[in-house]
Amino acid sequence: MNNFEYQNPTKIIFGRDSEAKVGAETAKFSKKVLLHFGGASARKKGLLDRIKASLSSAGVEWTELGGVRPNPVLSLVNSGIELCRKEKIGFILAVGGGSVIDSAKAIAVGVPYSGDVWDFYTGKAVPASALPLGTVLTIPAAGSESSSGSVITNEAGLLKRALNHDLLYPRFSILNPVLAFTLPKNQRAYGVADIMAHLMERYFTNVPAVEFTDRLIEATLKTVISAAPRIFSDEPDYDAWADVMWAGTIAHNNLLDTGRIGDWASHDIEHELSGIYDIPHGAGLAIIFPSWMRYTLSHDPARFAQFAARVWHVEPYFFDTNRVAEEGIQRLSKFWSSLGLPSRLADLGIGPENLSLMADKCTSGDTKTVGHFVELRKSDIEKIYNAAL
Amino acid sequence: MNNFEYQNPTKIIFGRDSEAKVGAETAKFSKKVLLHFGGASARKKGLLDRIKASLSSAGVEWTELGGVRPNPVLSLVNSGIELCRKEKIGFILAVGGGSVIDSAKAIAVGVPYSGDVWDFYTGKAVPASALPLGTVLTIPAAGSESSSGSVITNEAGLLKRALNHDLLYPRFSILNPVLAFTLPKNQRAYGVADIMAHLMERYFTNVPAVEFTDRLIEATLKTVISAAPRIFSDEPDYDAWADVMWAGTIAHNNLLDTGRIGDWASHDIEHELSGIYDIPHGAGLAIIFPSWMRYTLSHDPARFAQFAARVWHVEPYFFDTNRVAEEGIQRLSKFWSSLGLPSRLADLGIGPENLSLMADKCTSGDTKTVGHFVELRKSDIEKIYNAAL
Repeated sequence: MNNFEYQNPTKIIFGRDSEAKVGAETAKFSKKVLLHFGGASARKKGLLDRIKASLSSAGVEWTELGGVRPNPVLSLVNSGIELCRKEKIGFILAVGGGSVIDSAKAIAVGVPYSGDVWDFYTGKAVPASALPLGTVLTIPAAGSESSSGSVITNEAGLLKRALNHDLLYPRFSILNPVLAFTLPKNQRAYGVADIMAHLMERYFTNVPAVEFTDRLIEATLKTVISAAPRIFSDEPDYDAWADVMWAGTIAHNNLLDTGRIGDWASHDIEHELSGIYDIPHGAGLAIIFPSWMRYTLSHDPARFAQFAARVWHVEPYFFDTNRVAEEGIQRLSKFWSSLGLPSRLADLGIGPENLSLMADKCTSGDTKTVGHFVELRKSDIEKIYNAAL
Repeated sequence: MNNFEYQNPTKIIFGRDSEAKVGAETAKFSKKVLLHFGGASARKKGLLDRIKASLSSAGVEWTELGGVRPNPVLSLVNSGIELCRKEKIGFILAVGGGSVIDSAKAIAVGVPYSGDVWDFYTGKAVPASALPLGTVLTIPAAGSESSSGSVITNEAGLLKRALNHDLLYPRFSILNPVLAFTLPKNQRAYGVADIMAHLMERYFTNVPAVEFTDRLIEATLKTVISAAPRIFSDEPDYDAWADVMWAGTIAHNNLLDTGRIGDWASHDIEHELSGIYDIPHGAGLAIIFPSWMRYTLSHDPARFAQFAARVWHVEPYFFDTNRVAEEGIQRLSKFWSSLGLPSRLADLGIGPENLSLMADKCTSGDTKTVGHFVELRKSDIEKIYNAAL
């Protein structure tokens, strides 16, 4: 186990009707907030009205900024920064999924910064302060509701880049599984893929003696695998949604990588895909992750076999570790297919035209490697894309 | 799953040599601290000297208060409160195990309170403020290093009572597994029993649909069961100690009871034992918990059978749930015996003389029940004590 530091300050408020607490929680930080959200879905379900009623009753005023799309863009972030400055906003309340929350985080660090907020995403600058923010989560997937991360797409150059900083932890996140009941079925599947990918990125590590976090990750994966099929039932299953939502948060709140180093190549490889093609992140992960697994299996078959045996209940067969390992990847693929997820780039209409370009962007022109479990060069990434065609 | 709120603000600094950071972390809160510790052991290992060097180099001054014993007492807490007021202390640094940390927490809430700090432990008053505190952990066991709890014994009446309040969370806790290498073997075993008891108190619940936290608790228990025998080896096993220490913290930091209600009767029943006989808490738990399990098994055999199958790898046998359940309890008892833990009150020289008195104190004269999984009355508790004779 590696040395580590761990602290996650986000207050989680979980359960039915928990959004009724949003006014009181928000008022602890500011009486003037930016209400940040996506499309019409937050309005349609009456959620925004309930949130406004709660804010009003706590004496909190708001300015609205809607319109966040999946793969949130820098231009809207910049609008939000200007709006916050103009209206002297003291707190950002994100209502939505990971895209809205990531956009809110970018606005939060951008407001007190005199330069271009994109500097933080390229590593040119490090945030020194940020507006506090809170969230009302409507989509279990990204884990951004209690993470220190934010991913933004710069439309100029179609660059999708991530920022990680302790200032980005939400002060509170309100998780009501009922708010996810009306999600379209494909978005449910993308969320499950994203959550499982967060867990698997952490699982595939070269750090030895990580038995405790191995088991915690396995426990969380088994929970998602057990609950996920039940969130597709026509009659909403609160308990299944609650398991998926809470697991989605725990999957990405940094507890599960204490003392270990995750891989994260699949995320980087996928970011290039959804940066160019604007496909859902979860769909891209469902295609890339198994391809990455097959490409890297030989690096540590024992780890893949443990994953197969413990998470997918493949019968241990110690005479042929590879056979066990491969069966695990196959079960993952079959499971994702059973949820309606794509398994090939062709399923999304993506051909070989940009694979080399994406591999080039992913490695900054073959000047850096991607991934910690296996350090991949441009040529490796091209092969992973190609195997997923 | 029940609705819940969860937030744990403690910063964990984990790993080899991590105590070197204590000065810098402490200086963030105050330049004048109370250095609180137990007996000679902190001195013997040179730990206190290293901590003082780190404090000095960060410009932090300290006042010492040693002498905390296992089952920490109110009289020393009161001395600490006076000392802090006199010296205008701004931060308490606890160096030791759960007893030292619990004592430090009591001092922390006592300093700004004009009444008797014991009021907080009897429920007569609720803390409104507290000095901030940090810890350097030397014994993995109590989980107090990132919990909001404190247990203190009032020598007048031999009353052992607990306080839980968010103000009690340490601001930081430094966990270096190496500091535990020199622990006497019996204390290692008591620590393991305490950690496992914290997990099992949470496991036995009546709340339905708690699959996620069930699995997380099982994962943590399996980790402790796997690592514990290895912490007794003569050649210190860093990885085993690291698993036990981190699992001991996670076992009690409230993550594992999100959405569920633990039992806690065994803790209450044990507190009466160690309140009167001044035995180690872990020794008392090792005796009481299996006795409590046998007494309550019929309340929910399926939960005990799941515990047996998933944690102790008892082969599932669905034709006779009780048989599986009983085998699980037996494996727990055998495991604890293999670590040298006592299994009967007689092993500690305790006879039937005070059982009725303790059951009476535990239920405040049979005016309240104890435990949430099964609500036990005085007569139930007497039977549990008697079965453990």
